[in-house]
Formats: sequence, C-alpha cells, structure tokens
Amino acid sequence: MKKTVLTGIKPTGQIHLGNYIGAIKPALDLAIRKEYQPAYFVADYHGLTKMQQPNDFRQLTYGIAAAWLALGLDPKRAIFYRQSDVPELFELNWILSCITTKGLMNRAHAYKALVDKNVNLMKDEDTGVNIGLFTYPVLMAADILMFKTEVVPVGKDQVQHVEIARDIAESFNNYYGETFHLPEYKIQEGTSVLPGLDGRKMSKSYNNTIPIFEEPKKLQQLINKIKTDSLPPEAPKDPDTSIIFTIYKEFATPVEVEKMREAYSIGISWGEAKRQLFIVMNRFLEGPRERYKELMAHPETIDNILKDGAMEAREISKPFLNEIKRKIGITV
Amino acid sequence: MKKTVLTGIKPTGQIHLGNYIGAIKPALDLAIRKEYQPAYFVADYHGLTKMQQPNDFRQLTYGIAAAWLALGLDPKRAIFYRQSDVPELFELNWILSCITTKGLMNRAHAYKALVDKNVNLMKDEDTGVNIGLFTYPVLMAADILMFKTEVVPVGKDQVQHVEIARDIAESFNNYYGETFHLPEYKIQEGTSVLPGLDGRKMSKSYNNTIPIFEEPKKLQQLINKIKTDSLPPEAPKDPDTSIIFTIYKEFATPVEVEKMREAYSIGISWGEAKRQLFIVMNRFLEGPRERYKELMAHPETIDNILKDGAMEAREISKPFLNEIKRKIGITV
Repeated sequence: MKKTVLTGIKPTGQIHLGNYIGAIKPALDLAIRKEYQPAYFVADYHGLTKMQQPNDFRQLTYGIAAAWLALGLDPKRAIFYRQSDVPELFELNWILSCITTKGLMNRAHAYKALVDKNVNLMKDEDTGVNIGLFTYPVLMAADILMFKTEVVPVGKDQVQHVEIARDIAESFNNYYGETFHLPEYKIQEGTSVLPGLDGRKMSKSYNNTIPIFEEPKKLQQLINKIKTDSLPPEAPKDPDTSIIFTIYKEFATPVEVEKMREAYSIGISWGEAKRQLFIVMNRFLEGPRERYKELMAHPETIDNILKDGAMEAREISKPFLNEIKRKIGITV
Repeated sequence: MKKTVLTGIKPTGQIHLGNYIGAIKPALDLAIRKEYQPAYFVADYHGLTKMQQPNDFRQLTYGIAAAWLALGLDPKRAIFYRQSDVPELFELNWILSCITTKGLMNRAHAYKALVDKNVNLMKDEDTGVNIGLFTYPVLMAADILMFKTEVVPVGKDQVQHVEIARDIAESFNNYYGETFHLPEYKIQEGTSVLPGLDGRKMSKSYNNTIPIFEEPKKLQQLINKIKTDSLPPEAPKDPDTSIIFTIYKEFATPVEVEKMREAYSIGISWGEAKRQLFIVMNRFLEGPRERYKELMAHPETIDNILKDGAMEAREISKPFLNEIKRKIGITV
C-alpha cells in the first residue's frame, strides 16, 4: 500500500525559486519514489482568500500547473488536479466546519498575525479579514483528509496546518468512529533558508523573488540585483553566508560546488560569481522554460491533463464523501 | 417571470405547531399563487451545526420532508429538495466566504447571543462555538443567492439572515459585476406570537411545543397541559389573552371562531375550551397524520421525491455556479 503524499500551491503569483526549491523540487523527488502516491494540486480556491483580478487569477492558475509539468511532474505517476475540479472538497469543508471549534481558528498563526498587525495600527482586530481567510485551515484539512494523506511536506511555517487537520480528524473520529487517517507533516529542509534578492526569505510578499521562467536576459538582471557586501574582488569570501553560493549549490554539480567554494576562499568578484550562477541556473532552466512557454500557449493541454487528474481524484473523493455522509446521518 | 420564494427548515426536532403556523402554512399559501416559484428545502446540512446522533438525524430529516408533503406541498408546483443533494451550494459557500468580512459574522445575532451567554458564565467567549455555527449565515446566503431568490419569508428573528445575504451579494456584485439578485425578506405575521404550552413562544428550546403528528390521545394530553389561569368555569374570559383561543383560531372556521368568542364572553370552562380545540385540530390533522405515517413507513418514496427536486434545483445551480466561476477567474 502506497503512502499518499499531498501538496498544493495556490495561484497568487509567478512560480519563483523559493517555490521550486522549497516545495516543487522535494515533491518531485518524492513523486518518483515507489512507496509514495503523490497527490499534487493547484489550490485555486485557496487563492480566492485574497482579492484577485479574474483574468490574472486564471493565468496564474495555469502558470502553477504549467510549472509543475515543465519541471518534470509526470501526471501518470501523480494524481495531479485543480482543487476547483473536485467539488466533494467543499461539502467536506462544511462537514468539518461543524466539528471544528472556533477557538482552533482563533489560534491559527496567519489569522493571529493579521490581528496583531491590526491592533498595532489601532484598527479593529478583524479589519481586512474575510471568512475565507479566517477559516482556510478547515478547507486545508478537507484537502488533506479527503485523500487519506499520510505525509504532507511543509515549510516550518505550515506545520500548524497539518496539526489543525489532525485535530479536526481526531474530533470527527471520536464522535463518529474511525474515518479519517491522521496525517503527518514532513518539514522540508531548506524551505525557510532560501534567501531572496535582499537576503530575507524569498517571498512574494517581500518582492524579492526570482521567478524561474523569466527569459535569460531578465534572469541575468535579477541575479545581478542579489545583495552583496562591498568586499573587493580579490578578498576571500565566506560561501556559507553568500546568497549567491546558497542558490548556486541548488543548480551546480558537486564538482562545480567544490570549485566555487575554492574560488570564494581565494577571492572571486561578485560579478563573476553572479555570472557563474546565471550559467548553472540557465543550463537547468532552459528546458523547463521552453516547455512552460509551450504549455502556456496551449492552455487546453493543461486543462486536459488537469481534468484527467480530477477524474482520478474523484474516484477517491466521491465514494469517500458518501461514506462520510452515511456516518453523520446525511442520506446519500 | 415568476418570483422565487425560498424557505428551508433544518432537522433538529419534530415538526411542531409553531413550525406549521409560522413557516409551513404561509409557505404553502404562497406555493399556490401563480406569481411565485417556490423553492422549499430540507436544510439538513444546517442541522449539523449542532451535534446530532446520526440515526436520529436521518429520521428527523425524513420527518421534515414528510411533514411538508403530508401538509399539502405539491412537489410539481415547488422545487422541493434536500440541501445535501445540491453540492454546488457548498462550492458557492466557499466563494462567498472569501467576500464576506469576518466583522459581518461577528455581528450576527445568534453568534452574539452565544458570546453573551458565555461571558455571563465567565467562560471563554467562544466556548461551544464551532465554525459551522459561526459561519452558517454564509451558507444561508448561498442557499438564497443560488436560486436568485426574490422573497424569503422569515420570522422577525431571521431578518438579519436576509440582510447578510444582501450584503454579501452586493459585495460580490460590486467587485465582479452584476451576478446575484438581492433578496427581500417578508415577515410572517404571527410567527413570533404563537404561544407554547407555557405561554412563551413555542420553541424546541423551551420544550413547550405541540408536535403536530402526535396520535390523538397524546395530542389531547398535550392540549390539556396548556397553561390557563384559575378563573371558575362560569366567569367571562378574555379570548385575546388565551393561548387556547389563539391556537383555536388557526384551525376553526370563521363561524366557529365567532361562537367560541361568544362562549368566552359568557363563560366557558378551560376543560371545555381545550376539548373544542382538540376537535378542530384533530379534524384538520387526521388526514396529514395518516399521510405522514405512510410516508415515514416508506422513506424511499420521500427519497424519490427529493431526488427529483434536486434534479430540478441543479438545473439552476449547475449552470449558475459555472457562470460565477468564470466571473471570478476559476476555469470551468
């Protein structure tokens, strides 16, 4: 029996290096291991918790799907679907809502951070908070529990989501009998350390990302913006505190990494280090970039792949939802 | 073009006289008027916001459906369905969640009453509140808006639900363009005045109801429990402050009502008044009681009627949800 491993990415921006290193690459590594059944999805309805311009939102959604495929996800090995194509999730979301204490949501990190921010600004604590934003951990629990997920790869800041899903599953199982599998989280090493252009965590909200499908010229420009110190070219440099080296390691061969480490210790100009980073990054990304462009030019291809994935997903979600409904006393 | 009039009853107890006089009877009166398209539903998923024993819950759900039919709802004139048979409602519920401010739910009367109660008991304000209970007005907005409802008959305590649905519809229309019809509420006269056995409003929570499908003997016993004062039989009595007379009016003919008013002014014993009340109630209820028993003995008949209704409902909800999804940028 394979273990289901589940991950979703919401369409709120272009896929960037942080997404790739932190989520997609480790998920692709798991997808080729025999013991796992990957369920990877485009979390489009989670993206709605922020106001979106509809056409941009549609394009961003295609962008996430195209990125997975361009970077090597084999839809034959993974159940690869768009959340909005699996309506059973939203019915389960309601069922789970009724067994989720409001206190659990009051304590969710993302919500608490919004409240703190509002309070600091002397505003009403719920300013700018919509019900989707407040309750999305319940929908996330539905995403996870519907597919009897055993492993959810997460960044450190997402551990609580899996804990909430476990809490909800336990409450349900206690009241209605054993139904949901309790998921485990698996912290992705490196997720929280990949630095952005300015040295802070690479994140859309800091506007310091490197979108991975940019054309070579633009990619080079972005790399040139990476923050460095003012050491002269000939000065020895510490690779382990260098953003350039941290990213370089992800794309270079072990031999290249060793050589670069030497170059740092002898002294390498930041310009040269950036040039070499561009070379290894572009070498890896040129294939995916072409596949991405091709897919984005043919969204119907993406739709077909996602529809097939949704059919697979619903072979699980439809009978399982019926089982759940019978247990709670809803006539099927 | 007919106006859609929508009402739902949740399965949290046996149908009682208050439900009949306050909700079902006026809804049945509207259902036979040519200008209305009734959409009447069993709000089973709303019933989940309270913990339910699954088998009881299933029976209560059948009971609500059987009551409508036994009391005369013609499923050919009304779209008559079980909420859980219309999955589009739960997807719309999520969409509307993302456009509903949390502040709107913080101000919902039912939630505020729970908070006040907790605070008075020196408990955490959200003690015993689940997310379903906190957010059910959003699901109610989905119920209403999905069918482009124009009129929602309500008791005074439910006016806010329709106002919330209007607020949500307006927010959506402002951001995504004209999509939802703004519903109006229609206050049912009499809803809030039908007294229970003890003189307070008839309500499950006061345990003072008269379930309408009780056997004659039990019905008589319940009527005998109606609270009266200690005036002697021969004393003139005020019909307008008498619970017995208030209920009598709902079942007697105008001539009978006049006669009873006279009897009160001359002097009638409470025992005799109760006997006469039983006679008119039982006269009306014996037919529905038999039909109700027949339906409850054949739940598959109820299921078939509800399934047909759900098909009709989904002829509206499926294309409308697709239209909504296109507007917000979710690929259909």
